[in-house]
Amino acid sequence: MNISINIKRLMKNIEELGKIGENVNGGINRSMGSQADEKARQWLHQYWKAHLQLEEDVDAAANMWLTWSDGQSLLPIAIGSHHDSVPDGGKYDGALGVLMATEILETLKEKRWSMRHPLTVVSFTGEEPNPYNVSTFGSKVVSGRLIKNDLEHIKNRDTGETIMSTLMRLGGNLDELETARLNQNCFSAYLECHIEQGHRLEDLALSVAVVSDITGIYREAVRICGESNHAGTTRIEDRKDAFLSAGELAIGLEKIVKQYDNIVATVGYVKISPNEANIIPGVVELILDIRTCSSERLNQVLIQLGGLLEEIGQRRKVEINRQVILNQEPVPMDKEIKAAVAAGCLAVGEPETILESMAGHDAANMAKVTRSGMIFVQSVNGKSHCKEEYTRPADIEKAGNAMLAAILELDWKLN
Amino acid sequence: MNISINIKRLMKNIEELGKIGENVNGGINRSMGSQADEKARQWLHQYWKAHLQLEEDVDAAANMWLTWSDGQSLLPIAIGSHHDSVPDGGKYDGALGVLMATEILETLKEKRWSMRHPLTVVSFTGEEPNPYNVSTFGSKVVSGRLIKNDLEHIKNRDTGETIMSTLMRLGGNLDELETARLNQNCFSAYLECHIEQGHRLEDLALSVAVVSDITGIYREAVRICGESNHAGTTRIEDRKDAFLSAGELAIGLEKIVKQYDNIVATVGYVKISPNEANIIPGVVELILDIRTCSSERLNQVLIQLGGLLEEIGQRRKVEINRQVILNQEPVPMDKEIKAAVAAGCLAVGEPETILESMAGHDAANMAKVTRSGMIFVQSVNGKSHCKEEYTRPADIEKAGNAMLAAILELDWKLN
Repeated sequence: MNISINIKRLMKNIEELGKIGENVNGGINRSMGSQADEKARQWLHQYWKAHLQLEEDVDAAANMWLTWSDGQSLLPIAIGSHHDSVPDGGKYDGALGVLMATEILETLKEKRWSMRHPLTVVSFTGEEPNPYNVSTFGSKVVSGRLIKNDLEHIKNRDTGETIMSTLMRLGGNLDELETARLNQNCFSAYLECHIEQGHRLEDLALSVAVVSDITGIYREAVRICGESNHAGTTRIEDRKDAFLSAGELAIGLEKIVKQYDNIVATVGYVKISPNEANIIPGVVELILDIRTCSSERLNQVLIQLGGLLEEIGQRRKVEINRQVILNQEPVPMDKEIKAAVAAGCLAVGEPETILESMAGHDAANMAKVTRSGMIFVQSVNGKSHCKEEYTRPADIEKAGNAMLAAILELDWKLN
Repeated sequence: MNISINIKRLMKNIEELGKIGENVNGGINRSMGSQADEKARQWLHQYWKAHLQLEEDVDAAANMWLTWSDGQSLLPIAIGSHHDSVPDGGKYDGALGVLMATEILETLKEKRWSMRHPLTVVSFTGEEPNPYNVSTFGSKVVSGRLIKNDLEHIKNRDTGETIMSTLMRLGGNLDELETARLNQNCFSAYLECHIEQGHRLEDLALSVAVVSDITGIYREAVRICGESNHAGTTRIEDRKDAFLSAGELAIGLEKIVKQYDNIVATVGYVKISPNEANIIPGVVELILDIRTCSSERLNQVLIQLGGLLEEIGQRRKVEINRQVILNQEPVPMDKEIKAAVAAGCLAVGEPETILESMAGHDAANMAKVTRSGMIFVQSVNGKSHCKEEYTRPADIEKAGNAMLAAILELDWKLN
């Protein structure tokens, strides 16, 4: 293959976009609807216009779509990711995928490469957790998982701005949200490059991997009711301590998931009442999060968790109420795209490495409307969602050329 | 002994004072500085004036002192407690001690009992945790544990009112706070009747007990620093989860104190950061509270706790910082008062039962300035600091007559 991406240009773009929303600590605040979100969109608009001589379409969900077409009759191949960040995040998560897609289009265009499919670059709106409490916002809208009714009453929890007003600022339109929905005849395929956000490629000393599945995410809100009581006069054996029960839940859940591979569980949100040093905690509310690409493994863990909670409830004389608040099924990636990405990895001298994605991605929503796939690139120290997030240029270059090869293979194979 | 309290009158007074600050749920809100605090003071003032023909002195800390004196040369015997309550508290904690003291004075006065010592009734200001974050406020001031400098900048955390303005409303005076301080030549003794706030007398099917010691209270602020990370992509073995560490701390501390008698430990305050469902907790701040009447037992527990925290820190790769924020020594009650109370219990047909107090009381501060002692009366179901707080009239009557007998014995014995 006598074509390859321009890594210097790509790294320059990563640095430039990475300055937008940079805070005093060196992290990036570029969450959905922020001023930095608007500025990042302007930067993309200007770059695309100046360097690709193309202008994007912005759909009603404010997703940005840029299409390089020569009047081909086949459906476009879409590539991209998102340009927003978590608070105090890094400059690779999302932005790398958008800029990689841009670089691939720029490379093909400047080489006047002849493609059978149009090529579309997309930057999705609000993929990360944000003040509107809707992550993967843009790809949920295009795949029909979010409609106008779900969003009308949502406001930014910090500023109070309605999502209608926010979308308007970003170039979208809540009233016409259904026009952003994609049907099965829009694209031939969707391929996303993303940092791994974990340690696995680093431990294997490899640069890139084929993503096999995107994890399911299961969340329960658990309420533990014990009894608030005097921290001095209540004997240990008479207590109904909701916090000790919560601790046993979290530690027990960790022990359960440790029995299996490729499943993780986290208790990340915990609220204690009355939360006074001299009062035994009467109520604890917490959210537990379990992630796995295997529904069977999830069920095994939930059976064991049920037994654990029953035992804790009886022994500590607390009442435990559970409510499932999220049960997102795992999403397998498309077979043909996986094969093309694996071939792309081999083409840049990397073995075929297959990883599950333990984070959610826009590619999971895109799987509802087209063939969808991902390529992972190594994260140094597995860090992500922080200013230490880093991926080496050499690994990015390999990922870019592997992705380019995969796109050309798909362009040749797909009809 | 041919003298006894009037239980009907006492119960009527408990009901009347118990209406002041009553909320819609049936609990009582009468914390320091509240309107209900002011009303309770007016009620006491009017009752004392109408039924005892005596008027109280209010000291600079707004403590109310009522003295029945016949010109005797011996120092007065003081009896009493406090009239404030916790938020949503009950009508016995504190109020019972003040009204019991009032009833004893009223009984002795109406029988024209001839005493060798003057008798003083006291109702202390702000014994309970309150919006000024200073519990046992009034008795701390009289015993020299709190001075003007400590208080000048304190404001009500809810209303923002300064403590100077609050004291003024209650009849005190921050500028002259030192005038409220008592020296060793003020009283012969201090005796306080209080509900047990625990289960022990109920389990023994007894009404009253002699208090041997008031518990020491030891508090540490503990900060556990792990690493916030992605709840999906971070493998279980790579995590530094501060919440799991905190859970192990609390559960381990419970296990340690269970090895000993008469010591309790509580983790009642816990703050988790960033406290998001999809992020591994990076930092947990908590307060642990350990109570025992034995400094030796406390030290044994602290040695074991140190070992536990070192083990958790190493295994979970978290940093644990500890800061002692309170180390209140246990206070033994006076020998002569304990003997008099024991004799009083026998006089009402109760065996001599000796209990440690696991809650703090004004009597602990009064021990710095005079002989100090307490009598406990049974709490139904051990409940306290809630609207279910209840003590049976029959038990209150026994406690009153035992206390009356104890006072007469002290009046005869002390010089």
